[in-house]
Amino acid sequence: LRIALDAFGGDNAPRANIDGAKLALKQALESGTESFEIALVGDGRQLEKFGLEPVSSQLSFIDIPRPKGRSPKSLPSIAENPESAIRTALRMHSQGDFDAVVSAGSTGAQVLASILELERCQGVSRPAIGAFIPTAGGNCLLIDVGASLVATPMHLLQFAIMGNVYFRELMGNPSPRIGLLNVAAEAYAGEHAAIEAHRGLSESRLNFVGFVEGRDVPAGKADVVVVSGLIGNVLLKYIEGLPALFSKFASISDSESLYRVIAEKLDFHTFGGEPLLGVNGVSIICHGASNERSVAAAIHQAVRISRMGLNRKIEDALKESADLVSIQHIKKAGFRRGLRPRR
Amino acid sequence: LRIALDAFGGDNAPRANIDGAKLALKQALESGTESFEIALVGDGRQLEKFGLEPVSSQLSFIDIPRPKGRSPKSLPSIAENPESAIRTALRMHSQGDFDAVVSAGSTGAQVLASILELERCQGVSRPAIGAFIPTAGGNCLLIDVGASLVATPMHLLQFAIMGNVYFRELMGNPSPRIGLLNVAAEAYAGEHAAIEAHRGLSESRLNFVGFVEGRDVPAGKADVVVVSGLIGNVLLKYIEGLPALFSKFASISDSESLYRVIAEKLDFHTFGGEPLLGVNGVSIICHGASNERSVAAAIHQAVRISRMGLNRKIEDALKESADLVSIQHIKKAGFRRGLRPRR
Repeated sequence: LRIALDAFGGDNAPRANIDGAKLALKQALESGTESFEIALVGDGRQLEKFGLEPVSSQLSFIDIPRPKGRSPKSLPSIAENPESAIRTALRMHSQGDFDAVVSAGSTGAQVLASILELERCQGVSRPAIGAFIPTAGGNCLLIDVGASLVATPMHLLQFAIMGNVYFRELMGNPSPRIGLLNVAAEAYAGEHAAIEAHRGLSESRLNFVGFVEGRDVPAGKADVVVVSGLIGNVLLKYIEGLPALFSKFASISDSESLYRVIAEKLDFHTFGGEPLLGVNGVSIICHGASNERSVAAAIHQAVRISRMGLNRKIEDALKESADLVSIQHIKKAGFRRGLRPRR
Repeated sequence: LRIALDAFGGDNAPRANIDGAKLALKQALESGTESFEIALVGDGRQLEKFGLEPVSSQLSFIDIPRPKGRSPKSLPSIAENPESAIRTALRMHSQGDFDAVVSAGSTGAQVLASILELERCQGVSRPAIGAFIPTAGGNCLLIDVGASLVATPMHLLQFAIMGNVYFRELMGNPSPRIGLLNVAAEAYAGEHAAIEAHRGLSESRLNFVGFVEGRDVPAGKADVVVVSGLIGNVLLKYIEGLPALFSKFASISDSESLYRVIAEKLDFHTFGGEPLLGVNGVSIICHGASNERSVAAAIHQAVRISRMGLNRKIEDALKESADLVSIQHIKKAGFRRGLRPRR
C-alpha cells in the first residue's frame, strides 16, 4: 500500500505532516501491522528548506513544483489548476500510483479536486464527508459535514445510504440506526427537503429511525445522523469548540477530571481524517489545524479505508436502492422543489 | 400589568402552567417587585377538572371554549382558527386587555398566530426568536432559533438589527459584538445568503465582527450570533441535549461537580421563555417541556419585556438602517438569489 500525503496542506504544514508521516510508520512498526509506504508530495525546493532526509525506504518525497500564476491559497486556483499538488496526487492515485491521498489543506479544494480527478462512484450525485462525534450511546456519524452546503431530498437519501455503508463497515454494526436531522419530530413538519427525504427513507431497507432533533444527537438516538453540509459543518465545529466553554466552567469547579474526559472525547486530533465518500478512490480529508498526532491517525485511516473496498459497496447499495420507486419520486421532487423554503 | 398565560400549552399543561403562575406571583411578592396580574386562558370546563380555585385577586381564569372541528394539535387548526385560545389571547392583547401573552404550546402556531393578531413591527419582514446560550465569554444571543427556517440576506440583516436592540436593552451592553454564523471565516466563502448579508452588515453601524464559525460560538467570539432558524434551532436543541452526553462521561470520572455546573448552565428551564421579536406586542415563546420553574421565569420575562418598550426601539433601529444603500441592494439580491445554493 502506498499513501500520498499532501506535504503543504494545513495550518501546521509541512512540519506536522512530515512528523506525522514518521510517527505513523513508527506506530505501524511497533504494532506489527502490515507495512505501507508514504509519499510526501509537494514542491521539492520548499521541502528542501525544511532539511528533510529520507528516514526509511517507506518514506519518499515526490516533487510537484508549485504552479505559477494565481495564489495557491484560493480554492479555484488549487482545484482548477491540474498542476496543483493535490490534483496531481489525486490523478496519480486514479492512475494506480497511490492507494489513497491524505491532505489537511482546504477542504473545498480537496472535494472539488477529488471529484475532478477520481470522478464520482456510479449513482452518486454528490459526495459527502462523514465525521464521528461522541454521544451518550457511543460515536455517531454525522454526514455531510461540508462537502457541499445545501442538499436536496435526493442528496440526503444518498448521504444516508453512503453513511450506512461506511458505519456498517467501519464499526462492524450490520444495521446502524439512521436518523434524519430536522427541527421537529413529526413526519410532516420542518424543512421541505427533510420531509421529502423522510418519505424516501421510510420506504428504504435502511434501519431508519425517523427524524432526530438537535437534542437527540448527543442522547445517541441514531448511529448515523443525516444532514445538509451547512448544518453538519456548523454543528461539528460547535462541538469542536466545546472544550473552550467547559474549561471556563472547570475553573470554577473543584475538580477538573470530567473536563479532561470531555476535552479528550471532543479532541478532533484523535479522529485524524475522514474519507470523502462517493468518489472512486480514497481521499482522506483532515482538519486544517492537524498536528503530528492527527496526521498519523489520518494515515492509518487511509490504510484502513484502502483495504475496505468501500466504494464498490457504496455503488452496490445505491444500485439496490435505485429500484425503489420512492427514489425516483424524490429525485424529481428534489430538483423541482428541494431548495424552496417551507412556506 | 396583566399577563395572559396559555393554560393548555405545553407537554406538562395545565399543571405546570397553573403552578408556574402561582410561583411567579409568590416570587414577585417575596422580592418586593412591582405587582402584576396573571390571566390563565383556556377552556373553562377543562380547567375545572383540575380543581382550580382562585388563589388571589392577581390570578384569574378566562374561559376560551375549545373550538369545535379539527384536532387542535395541528398547527394550521390552532393558528388559522380565530377562536383558538392562543389567537384569542393575542387578539385581546392587541386590543389592550393584556400586556403580554405567554405560551408553552406549539412554537409554529404561536409564531403564526402572533403575526396574524399582533402584526409585524414597521420594517420587519420576518419576526425572529432569540435564545441565550452559554459561552466562555458569558451568554450570547442566538437569533433566529426557529420562527422561520430559511433566511434571505435581508432576513439575516433584520435578525442582526433586532438582536442588537434586544441584547443591548436586556444586558445593558451598548454595543454588542454581532457575528454571522457561517461555514468559513473568509468574507467570500460559504453560503450565498451569508455572504450577501456579510456585505450589508459590514456597511451597517452595528459592531459587526464578521463571520463566526461553529467553534467561535462556545468560545464567545460574538454576543449576538445571527443565523437562519433552521440552523439556530438544531444548534439550540443540540446544546439542550448536552447534559445527557456529559452525564455519561461524568459516571466514568471521579467527580461530578463540573457536570452539575454544565447541567445547570445548559438547563433551558432557567431561561423560561423568549419574546418573538418583530411583532407589535409581547408574545413570549416557552419550551414545550416547560415546568413550573420555567413557566414562572417566562412570566417574569414577559413583565420585563413589557416594560422595555422594545418594539418601538426595534422600529427605530430598522428605520435608521433603511437609509443604507446596502440594505436596498441586499433586499433585491435576497429576493433574487438568496435561496439558491452556492454553485
